[in-house]
Amino acid sequence: MGRNERIKAFVNGRIYAKFKPLRIVSGMVFAGDMIVYSGDSDRAKKIARELGGETVDLQGRTVLPGFVDAHVHLGALGLLHYAINLQNLKSIEGVKKAVLEYRERYPQARVVIGFGWDQERFAEGRWPNKEDVDSVSKDVPVVLIRACGHAALLNSVALEILGEQLKSLPSDFVARDTRARPTGLVFEEAVEIAREKFVELVGGRKDMLLRGIEHACSLGVTSIGFMSASLNDFKALQELLYEGVLRARVHVYFKHSEYDTISKVGFRKGYGHDMLVINGIKLFADGSLGARTAFLSEDYSDAPGWRGKLLLNERELTRLLEDIVGNRLQPAI
Amino acid sequence: MGRNERIKAFVNGRIYAKFKPLRIVSGMVFAGDMIVYSGDSDRAKKIARELGGETVDLQGRTVLPGFVDAHVHLGALGLLHYAINLQNLKSIEGVKKAVLEYRERYPQARVVIGFGWDQERFAEGRWPNKEDVDSVSKDVPVVLIRACGHAALLNSVALEILGEQLKSLPSDFVARDTRARPTGLVFEEAVEIAREKFVELVGGRKDMLLRGIEHACSLGVTSIGFMSASLNDFKALQELLYEGVLRARVHVYFKHSEYDTISKVGFRKGYGHDMLVINGIKLFADGSLGARTAFLSEDYSDAPGWRGKLLLNERELTRLLEDIVGNRLQPAI
Repeated sequence: MGRNERIKAFVNGRIYAKFKPLRIVSGMVFAGDMIVYSGDSDRAKKIARELGGETVDLQGRTVLPGFVDAHVHLGALGLLHYAINLQNLKSIEGVKKAVLEYRERYPQARVVIGFGWDQERFAEGRWPNKEDVDSVSKDVPVVLIRACGHAALLNSVALEILGEQLKSLPSDFVARDTRARPTGLVFEEAVEIAREKFVELVGGRKDMLLRGIEHACSLGVTSIGFMSASLNDFKALQELLYEGVLRARVHVYFKHSEYDTISKVGFRKGYGHDMLVINGIKLFADGSLGARTAFLSEDYSDAPGWRGKLLLNERELTRLLEDIVGNRLQPAI
Repeated sequence: MGRNERIKAFVNGRIYAKFKPLRIVSGMVFAGDMIVYSGDSDRAKKIARELGGETVDLQGRTVLPGFVDAHVHLGALGLLHYAINLQNLKSIEGVKKAVLEYRERYPQARVVIGFGWDQERFAEGRWPNKEDVDSVSKDVPVVLIRACGHAALLNSVALEILGEQLKSLPSDFVARDTRARPTGLVFEEAVEIAREKFVELVGGRKDMLLRGIEHACSLGVTSIGFMSASLNDFKALQELLYEGVLRARVHVYFKHSEYDTISKVGFRKGYGHDMLVINGIKLFADGSLGARTAFLSEDYSDAPGWRGKLLLNERELTRLLEDIVGNRLQPAI
């Protein structure tokens, strides 16, 4: 039989074929994406020869099954590629310095995106505000996402660009001072609006998702649960799929606002391409503790009178869950 | 190595492995749905043994690649299972007799469905009308679809049941006498409305589609282009898929009225499960010759002043085609 490119043997490896009980083998043969043999290297070599396949010498390297990350915000993950890392900064001054350095390093940048700040760690003992970022970027929009992803700090230009869109949101999503002017802090849906808007100024949605996929693959993660995907994300993933660059398997959980369309088409959990599967719908019941949007049974100790924000009440949530499950889709909250 | 259920060898067959140039082999080995070896039986047996698979003796039987039928109205095909075959009848009297016999044979039937008549073959030299069928079924609805699928004959009960739905259609779709009463003949969209309505009185949509699939498989057709599918058809096919009974590969062409939803989700041609693929959109430019709905450049010789019915004018058609192709879907007309 001639050469068969879909047959591949891996030999001389330390291949974890099973964990319970542990079974480590040295050889394995694949036919396409199916394992047809696992055992010793000599036999693997022989089978590959028989089927006209190639043999790869692993030279003692370890092989593990791909990791699964069931809860990934793939767009946000990809965006980190373009973002300033603010995770270890211990002061608002440090954040300002990081933005300034970025602007000096990339004078052509049309937007500054940062990720990872946490006001609880700031020496100043207060939340940052738009004046802080205006002082280092007057003309270029700045979007600094909090570590939790449920809050973001915008400068005045960014607030101006998003003006109309932010107006349509519930008032809780845009923090305002006593004179009703935005402080620069926005929450929940407003964070997403900012991200969607400004990603177009960097590499665009498709590139952003690809960066997320590549990051996952670089860590051995071969299967991803993509939370809160939009239909535009889904379109972009299909493009990546047909360009042959979607190397991790993606299980899509659409965001709540896309549910009507999804249920109209009548997808069930599991429908789709082997590498791009439709799984379910992601709902948000409330926000995060750090952003003070998590819904508590009593007031926040540092914010008397404030218990966070319930995004769906019990009745809405019950009705939605019944509907989603009735449509044979997987709900995630 | 232990037993591997996904490995299967077929031996002692007359297996057409290739046509240009012709190559007939006696043995073949599958790993899942992938052919990993084709050649002589002894070697196929040996490989299966090596991989822990089963060997099936074909005892000289012929094996061909699955046939592809690129244009199937799967619902209509499945409906034939429940329908009286009117294809060889040469008179309206013959049609009446067939309906009568069916009613005597199935006194519990809640609807009588027939398929295949052609007025061109009728000794009476005229189109049939509702009085013809009323005379053999006053109480149970009768739907007799013409051989082309673009026209149908209904009795009075059926017309009454569909009353409101037919009213909403363009007047050309429901034939009327000089006193504006329906003659019993309906065309195009009205045929589909009748089929959708009355299929619920027989086995239901899912069963109907399954009958179509099974019929295709019984003839060696393993891949189908399903024309004018509705979203409800798509839902039912997903159910069949997950019940493990969808044995033919289905490429779905949604009907025009579902295009808005499909384009909103942003599918591309080829997305979907390996056995249930989304391919494109089916448009109707006009009808059929026999039903007199095909659009001609001059009058029908037997119907002066009538040129058939253009369902989409050139401008609409061009705009739609550009839009569908722009969305990376396959148009079919």
